[in-house]
Amino acid sequence: MNESLTYKDTGVDLEAADRAKRSLGPLIDASSDENTLSGLGAFGGLYAVPAGLSQPVLVSSADGVGTKLKVAFAAGRHDTVGQDLVNHCVNDILVQGARPLFFLDYLATGDLEGDVVPAIVGGVARACGENSCTLLGGETAQMPDFYAPGEYDLAGFIVGVVERDRILDGSAVQAGDRIVAVPSSGLHTNGYTLARTIVFERMALGVDDAFPGEERSVADVLLTVHRSYLDTMWPLMEEGMIRALAHVTGGGIEGNLPRVLPQGLGARISCGSWTVPNVFVQLEQGGGVSRTEMYRVFNMGVGMLVVVAREREAQVLKTLGRDSCSVGEVVEGAGVELVGV
Amino acid sequence: MNESLTYKDTGVDLEAADRAKRSLGPLIDASSDENTLSGLGAFGGLYAVPAGLSQPVLVSSADGVGTKLKVAFAAGRHDTVGQDLVNHCVNDILVQGARPLFFLDYLATGDLEGDVVPAIVGGVARACGENSCTLLGGETAQMPDFYAPGEYDLAGFIVGVVERDRILDGSAVQAGDRIVAVPSSGLHTNGYTLARTIVFERMALGVDDAFPGEERSVADVLLTVHRSYLDTMWPLMEEGMIRALAHVTGGGIEGNLPRVLPQGLGARISCGSWTVPNVFVQLEQGGGVSRTEMYRVFNMGVGMLVVVAREREAQVLKTLGRDSCSVGEVVEGAGVELVGV
Repeated sequence: MNESLTYKDTGVDLEAADRAKRSLGPLIDASSDENTLSGLGAFGGLYAVPAGLSQPVLVSSADGVGTKLKVAFAAGRHDTVGQDLVNHCVNDILVQGARPLFFLDYLATGDLEGDVVPAIVGGVARACGENSCTLLGGETAQMPDFYAPGEYDLAGFIVGVVERDRILDGSAVQAGDRIVAVPSSGLHTNGYTLARTIVFERMALGVDDAFPGEERSVADVLLTVHRSYLDTMWPLMEEGMIRALAHVTGGGIEGNLPRVLPQGLGARISCGSWTVPNVFVQLEQGGGVSRTEMYRVFNMGVGMLVVVAREREAQVLKTLGRDSCSVGEVVEGAGVELVGV
Repeated sequence: MNESLTYKDTGVDLEAADRAKRSLGPLIDASSDENTLSGLGAFGGLYAVPAGLSQPVLVSSADGVGTKLKVAFAAGRHDTVGQDLVNHCVNDILVQGARPLFFLDYLATGDLEGDVVPAIVGGVARACGENSCTLLGGETAQMPDFYAPGEYDLAGFIVGVVERDRILDGSAVQAGDRIVAVPSSGLHTNGYTLARTIVFERMALGVDDAFPGEERSVADVLLTVHRSYLDTMWPLMEEGMIRALAHVTGGGIEGNLPRVLPQGLGARISCGSWTVPNVFVQLEQGGGVSRTEMYRVFNMGVGMLVVVAREREAQVLKTLGRDSCSVGEVVEGAGVELVGV
């Protein structure tokens, strides 16, 4: 006769799940706003459609953190990946003209005990607060023989809103429009499988080693938080100064800028018009990666591309200040020509 | 001098990602409705708030499939886990009174090639269609040294809508109300870590073996699709026949029914009033699991609990027909008493 089995024997602890859920309550409450109608424990989160919009359109996006998580595991630093996730999602709906309403996270892990889950969700909640976004709910899944101890996957989902006639869909873009670049803070969340291979295998560095050419450690450089462009771009968007925005994510400038250009239009980008940050230079050299491949995989220092009417470029550059530079223009044709790569 | 590295060398294939994304296009298009404003390739999915609601409230939920995925891996059957995911999410917002608007999935895998990704997303899209829910977007992440070949994690996010004065929040529930049970189709998505330990280790069965007491295989029984209660419950909800709904998920009846009972009220459930399906009986015996633990981990054959005014119970039972039974009542007090366990 076998011994009697319980759920806990197999690694799933319902009481730990309850404790984890309760510990997240204050984080969730702190991000609530006047449209948040539900509290912790509801099957679904409730959020009233904001009043005052004549034709509200919801804009939604799902994303993960990718293998940047592996750097977090190696560094034992779990409080920033939630910020990466939220900020990435905020940018993905911002480029369609939307401001965030609410966010939900999915965290799957082998073990709910210890400080890891609160650190992760704390980062999510902090970034939600910084982006005026309610953390409306989420799922924390215990999958003990699926994820190794100390490992997890993290995904998120955002819903924002835009007035129908203010949607940015690229249809306003014309040949001759200027393209302004706003810097990234680092790799953001793209290219980490290649970057980790270069840094940890080719360069044989550890997370605590100094990153070549920097005073910061490898962990500091590789875990630099993905920048949110909401506060930077929103005032210009409200003034109607912007014709299109492209978030430079997986696929780089070439993969993302065409997503907001109308049929028949392409772009020419002068790659010498900004200084490629050291982290990309080191990855290129350390991995012997071709310049073309670098631009296809990484953002190369440009996190957001802003398409503006030619006559408005000077004003946009003035408003953004040193946090921007003029990098190219919209041209007849198709695709993106990277000049000087 | 090291050889030149590319992203593909490290296991991430941007062209495979593009192909996978394009192959999903028709599935996504097929689930669109008149409020869907975006197509494939947009940074965020666009969905107009449906007209005709005076105070629309969004209801949103995130969930995963849990380690039911491990059964899918073992059986090589990937076309049903998406249905599990969507149906589970639909139920989670249904119990608050909401009908689905749109859904986004997060699929993280080591390898995008082959038939697995289209099978998974095909299941998601099919279930979206069955629940009149737009598949608005999603993320398919390539994480080659994170997930083993042939393995993946799958999560989903749903947004539905309810008129503010039609929200089901349990506040209408009164002592003396009757509780009606609607059957589950199987384990749904809960308790799989325990169930797999019992079936694959204690019982030493394989996925192709006959499940004890059934004509179906172990894979058939354990992969039975999570039921959606939308079509069953919606007509009764529209008629205002229902005071509260509880989706019996992780934590069982005891863990979920209290989530929709007001302070000061509990429930008494007569566990002899329905026949516990064979799968649960076999798990209990095969694992030597205590009856109490079984009810804490599994749904035990009850997927949805419906709280109705006493005078409406007969009509609700008549409408639901053989797909329901009367199982208990709301009482003064707190918590759920499972009579006859």
